[in-house]
Amino acid sequence: MKKVISIALMIGVAFASMAQQALWGASQIKSPEVNDNNTVTFRLKAPKAVKVQVTGDFLPTQPIQTPFGTFDGPGVADLVEGENGVWEYTTPEALAPELYSYTFLVDGLKINDPSNVFVIRDTASLTNVFLIGGDERADLYAVKDVPHGTVSKVWYNSPSLGMNRRLTVYTPAGYEKGSQRYPVFYLLHGMGGDENAWTELGRAAQILDNLIAQGKAEPMIVVMTNGNAGLEAAPGESSLGYTQPTTALPKTMEGSFETSFPEIVKFIDKNYRTKANKKNRAIAGLSMGGFHSMHISKQYPDMFDYVGLFSAAIMPGQNVTSPVYDDIEGKLAVQFAKKPALYWIAIGDKDFLYQANTDYRKLLDNKGYKYTYRESPDGHIWKNWRIYLTEFVPQLFRKA
Amino acid sequence: MKKVISIALMIGVAFASMAQQALWGASQIKSPEVNDNNTVTFRLKAPKAVKVQVTGDFLPTQPIQTPFGTFDGPGVADLVEGENGVWEYTTPEALAPELYSYTFLVDGLKINDPSNVFVIRDTASLTNVFLIGGDERADLYAVKDVPHGTVSKVWYNSPSLGMNRRLTVYTPAGYEKGSQRYPVFYLLHGMGGDENAWTELGRAAQILDNLIAQGKAEPMIVVMTNGNAGLEAAPGESSLGYTQPTTALPKTMEGSFETSFPEIVKFIDKNYRTKANKKNRAIAGLSMGGFHSMHISKQYPDMFDYVGLFSAAIMPGQNVTSPVYDDIEGKLAVQFAKKPALYWIAIGDKDFLYQANTDYRKLLDNKGYKYTYRESPDGHIWKNWRIYLTEFVPQLFRKA
Repeated sequence: MKKVISIALMIGVAFASMAQQALWGASQIKSPEVNDNNTVTFRLKAPKAVKVQVTGDFLPTQPIQTPFGTFDGPGVADLVEGENGVWEYTTPEALAPELYSYTFLVDGLKINDPSNVFVIRDTASLTNVFLIGGDERADLYAVKDVPHGTVSKVWYNSPSLGMNRRLTVYTPAGYEKGSQRYPVFYLLHGMGGDENAWTELGRAAQILDNLIAQGKAEPMIVVMTNGNAGLEAAPGESSLGYTQPTTALPKTMEGSFETSFPEIVKFIDKNYRTKANKKNRAIAGLSMGGFHSMHISKQYPDMFDYVGLFSAAIMPGQNVTSPVYDDIEGKLAVQFAKKPALYWIAIGDKDFLYQANTDYRKLLDNKGYKYTYRESPDGHIWKNWRIYLTEFVPQLFRKA
Repeated sequence: MKKVISIALMIGVAFASMAQQALWGASQIKSPEVNDNNTVTFRLKAPKAVKVQVTGDFLPTQPIQTPFGTFDGPGVADLVEGENGVWEYTTPEALAPELYSYTFLVDGLKINDPSNVFVIRDTASLTNVFLIGGDERADLYAVKDVPHGTVSKVWYNSPSLGMNRRLTVYTPAGYEKGSQRYPVFYLLHGMGGDENAWTELGRAAQILDNLIAQGKAEPMIVVMTNGNAGLEAAPGESSLGYTQPTTALPKTMEGSFETSFPEIVKFIDKNYRTKANKKNRAIAGLSMGGFHSMHISKQYPDMFDYVGLFSAAIMPGQNVTSPVYDDIEGKLAVQFAKKPALYWIAIGDKDFLYQANTDYRKLLDNKGYKYTYRESPDGHIWKNWRIYLTEFVPQLFRKA
């Protein structure tokens, strides 16, 4: 063995070379750097670039033109070239605690920061992210030294959609060891998203871990579905092959997903230790997921006692003829006659769906249906949906 | 409700605008495109670029200089600028079935393909990936329409390392519903990797799903640990804060991880329906994980009946004084006297650890210890580790 060891030591100083070759050529630049005063410095080595910019939601918004009108978009700031072709930008002011996303623009080409492997996919774009902690809410997004739940990618069979489909399931810390039964919260993504969206962009596992550890939320199972009824799973995770994410998916907002939803509830109740009754079930979703939550909860009025509409897309598609969208007012009447424990509507004051939500609230008001309304600043963005999640979860299963 | 719907329909054509703003500005370029004849076309829109290249493991290797010598690195090919600033390169020949990785070089700056959201992190680099199927082995890497196991991120407490730590656990299809007990395969990553490496770069869940569905492997639980004893979890998933991946981690290859390993086995046997005995336990790992598998299996000779060393780093660190590395020959004598069901050594003929593995085999040969040897082409790369996994798994638990 001595000989083996001595030969090995000849390359022993080459520990770094043992890394899977990817390590060679890794960036030596620190970016982003959160400075002591909570300003943030971005750096990119690009000696041949003419113009380098950073764009992200940490900058003041600016109007962007789309085929559908003008909306607030992320701002842009210029980096300045320094020594050795390293470009740099430091925010003029401290950033408030939040999870932020950004990308670089190099001569107009959008690229990720090669010094930051921490990226999240949102629909068809990858963005780098960084977290500024330090207040009670943003600290909920961080992994803390508390008991952690388990996050599982689980497949269920959907007879009505004719395929095996993937779910993300959060079970709270202690689930594996105990015999206790838990309430279940179904949490739905928006258009272009999938079963990964809430754990990645939404920090759902961290928010649940931290709220439960602080005693501010009941221990619960959280089921994050894939609401694209034509797909099995997220891009790259499906036997249907790789599909570039798009909003132009088949079977979207035409009733199939809502109709198939009881299959998911049945699967969860069969395979997990759930409290399988209405007062221990919640459903909420963002944008298209809010649309789904609204329709599913009224379609099956004995299934969910807690309903959350986060920036909900209160609209059916054009030319949609599913029975799910028939007699909406009649079904709402049945649902509200049963007095849901919580019907929570939240939206940003700059959301392009603000007016549609206002009109929907008017309808509920006219009928005297009881709901809770939460209006926040900003538009149709993940910052709001994370905030809504931190506020919705503590209200769940308090009557149970 | 009529009014709500009609107002909604005013923006109804704007379905695309409901996507979380990230969709605006998403690439309209198709890249990579796998053509009918299995050539592949790469495209990048970069009107202001002077030079655009693609680099990846689908190209013939070329020598690269490192501080530790010259090794085979990925090749580079030039894209040619066409209309509207869209650069393009098509491989001159069909690519063999394989999972490939690549990045672009734009005027020397390494960037990911903005048209392909399918990326995998390897140590400190993100690369895009694509899969060419069509042969029996590469098809094992694809998600097929077969029963799927569950992949969970699970936390366990390590008293010896003083922290909660994260594992990836694969449970085979049907685990949730049944009462059956399963054998357990512990699968370890290399330096710079973490508990995500084998499911992401290694396609472990797909390989297991497919081999089990084909009847070529026993249904088994696979536990993928984090072998960096100073860390809780992968970057961004730890309460220790975000750490840029590096090989210069504390507590690496100095005995702590090996010493703590029985805590993991105990946790798994307590929380899962395992066959909790030696003949139903396997351990294997790549590079540093092969080093760990070698040391753990000899340190605890009654724990594992199946051992796999994939391109193993057969070397202790310098100045390492852990008892784990004392009396290696004596411990091997004990381990091999107990006649392991399988001791499998695999390495590529261009691996920089080839000589160290040859020397280790000589030591085993001199003692008359029985092992199986598998030599493949190529070097210290994931292509080989996926191949080894597809070959190792079918040999497991056949004596049980």
